[in-house]
Amino acid sequence: MKKVLVLGGDGFCGWPTALHLSEHGHEVVIVDNLSRRNIDNELGITSLTPISSVETRLSAWAEVSGKTIRFVHIDIAHEYRELLDLILDFEPSTIIHFAEQRAAPYSMKSAKHKIYTVNNNLNATHNVLAAMVESGQDIHLVHLGTMGVYGYGSAGMKIPEGYLNVRIQTDAGSLVEQEILYPVNPGSIYHMTKTQDQLFFAYYNKNDNLRITDLHQGIVWGTNTAETNLDERLVNRFDYDGDYGTVLNRFVMQAAIGFPLTVHGTGGQTRAFIHIQDTVRCIRLAVENEPVANERVRIFNQMTETHKVRDLANLVAELSGAEVNYMSNPRKEAPENDLFVSNDCFLQMGLEPILLSRGLLSEVNDIARKYEARCDREKIPCVSYWTNEQREDAVAARSDEETLTA
Amino acid sequence: MKKVLVLGGDGFCGWPTALHLSEHGHEVVIVDNLSRRNIDNELGITSLTPISSVETRLSAWAEVSGKTIRFVHIDIAHEYRELLDLILDFEPSTIIHFAEQRAAPYSMKSAKHKIYTVNNNLNATHNVLAAMVESGQDIHLVHLGTMGVYGYGSAGMKIPEGYLNVRIQTDAGSLVEQEILYPVNPGSIYHMTKTQDQLFFAYYNKNDNLRITDLHQGIVWGTNTAETNLDERLVNRFDYDGDYGTVLNRFVMQAAIGFPLTVHGTGGQTRAFIHIQDTVRCIRLAVENEPVANERVRIFNQMTETHKVRDLANLVAELSGAEVNYMSNPRKEAPENDLFVSNDCFLQMGLEPILLSRGLLSEVNDIARKYEARCDREKIPCVSYWTNEQREDAVAARSDEETLTA
Repeated sequence: MKKVLVLGGDGFCGWPTALHLSEHGHEVVIVDNLSRRNIDNELGITSLTPISSVETRLSAWAEVSGKTIRFVHIDIAHEYRELLDLILDFEPSTIIHFAEQRAAPYSMKSAKHKIYTVNNNLNATHNVLAAMVESGQDIHLVHLGTMGVYGYGSAGMKIPEGYLNVRIQTDAGSLVEQEILYPVNPGSIYHMTKTQDQLFFAYYNKNDNLRITDLHQGIVWGTNTAETNLDERLVNRFDYDGDYGTVLNRFVMQAAIGFPLTVHGTGGQTRAFIHIQDTVRCIRLAVENEPVANERVRIFNQMTETHKVRDLANLVAELSGAEVNYMSNPRKEAPENDLFVSNDCFLQMGLEPILLSRGLLSEVNDIARKYEARCDREKIPCVSYWTNEQREDAVAARSDEETLTA
Repeated sequence: MKKVLVLGGDGFCGWPTALHLSEHGHEVVIVDNLSRRNIDNELGITSLTPISSVETRLSAWAEVSGKTIRFVHIDIAHEYRELLDLILDFEPSTIIHFAEQRAAPYSMKSAKHKIYTVNNNLNATHNVLAAMVESGQDIHLVHLGTMGVYGYGSAGMKIPEGYLNVRIQTDAGSLVEQEILYPVNPGSIYHMTKTQDQLFFAYYNKNDNLRITDLHQGIVWGTNTAETNLDERLVNRFDYDGDYGTVLNRFVMQAAIGFPLTVHGTGGQTRAFIHIQDTVRCIRLAVENEPVANERVRIFNQMTETHKVRDLANLVAELSGAEVNYMSNPRKEAPENDLFVSNDCFLQMGLEPILLSRGLLSEVNDIARKYEARCDREKIPCVSYWTNEQREDAVAARSDEETLTA
């Protein structure tokens, strides 16, 4: 049994993780500043699924499972002392850190959103590390990172789990072999903060011997897990909007309401995916298999399959009868890329992946069609642009359209 | 003639740079939040040299040179809108960014100091980049980085200027060559923030085509430059305390007041050095030789010679007759390392370095002995420790000492 502090435990990954760990006998305390709910307010949107308040969620969980999860409202990026006091008081064996702004399009909306993402994510991660050191306790940190730190694309090789062997030519002419952190190539401000997180981890691991597991996660799909399915008050978020909705959720939503699936660019982008049920299993495996003392930062790739975006669109179209619509890409990225990823660590720990081909249709029927009436169709398109030029082009295109239709 | 915004222009490198650029015909505006003067208050210390207020400095400069430098009080890490407005109003061709907390020992004093350094440095750098993009202006950013991003030590090779060619084995068995950012290995929280700055630069250069020059500077020695020497009201800072005093300044101070020179560990640490006069010359060279459009981030090593700390101590001892005293090292680092550094870029631009052997004695006589009466001897030892263990050992050692002398 571990004592686990789940930072960001009210969010999309944090909430089902907290329940899964509680169900499996761990003592769980959730810390959250409810920023994700506040961003819903800012964007004028709500989760497609009717999520309950934290209080209702936790009393429902107590009712259903007989287990208690405590909730503490702390903004860990700005309330260091409160975080430290909680650690000193609760004495966690594990801290799971989900408390970061996690949408790439949201991080690119404007200077304000870039600044918020950098400020929140970097201060949050650093405060956790500083508090772990100041507490003097031996705590294992599990962090939710992203496959996006690698950049999309691998030069003729499977992306390894965090570290890369390279050969360097010395001045004497010989080649020395060295293991380095895989060189990063982030695709957005959000992804950039995760590459900077890696440097926090490497430093605190080296200087203070902190034990850290960093999970480089693919794009999560699916909504519910065994635990969130137990009661409708436990239901997990489903984001379908242009900022927080992942590509797959947007397709599922579009299919359910009979809209053409919007593919950005050629759809030749290859991405890594994982079902939310597998996310919570992987995190439990990471929590229960701790790094030993003086081990370097452990990095696992937390994903189960890769697909090109257009293949996903075609899959959803086949399952649902929807059409596919290609449009210009608001991101700055290569139009086509391959992606091969090593995920041996979790497979060796016994993970049996849920595959897209098996679970996608139930997402369309059980989530998107069930809650269709709650969908605001206007929120589906992505209106965040990666550069000034793309923003100006989009504005010009809209103004052309208005002139033509006037 | 360039229009130059000098962020952190009241500090140790910023102030002489502002004067040097003004003297050479550039239009200069200084931005500063005066944090370095406030930290003096916090630490209960003052510069050995009697530095004037910003207002006095600028009116003295106008009197001596006939040139005007404007000063604007902005905390760029937290006053984004004010920074953006200034950029929109002044329309700089160049922004030089010195506005970061720059002492490794200060960054390690406590959790509070770690958090301050991370928060200040990362938000400051990011705000500048976000403002450059939002302004829509084509501005060249010159950033003062540190040799410390490389870590101390090079595996049988000269440290290149920022980028490293490596060979990577593909799954098919062939070796592909790739250029990557030199893998980082920072030695303190302060140095870590500079490795994270590099990722900001790489991202904004890639996504927004920002033109950026990052200067990886060695340890600066010396106090005055041709311009700060013109009038005592223009004098530059000299820090000799355990937090902000660099190793060489502490030796110079100790020599002047007849104290043994305190060497941490074996003194086998090799470091890179540069005179403050060469710093301002290098920065002018960087400002006047801009990267072209779509050029990747330009990285120069801004240093002129390397020395082992014990050799420096012996050099100062020879010049001054001081003794050398070896003591335990408060830092966590290798006891001995070699360091070979490439600095071809600046040499090719015409830099003629001022060497330690030529300038050190005048530092002892013209600065340290001249202002000796202003020295607070109790502030010379370094009382920042890199880890909880080192702090506890130091406390135990002091308590043993007190017991023995009681």
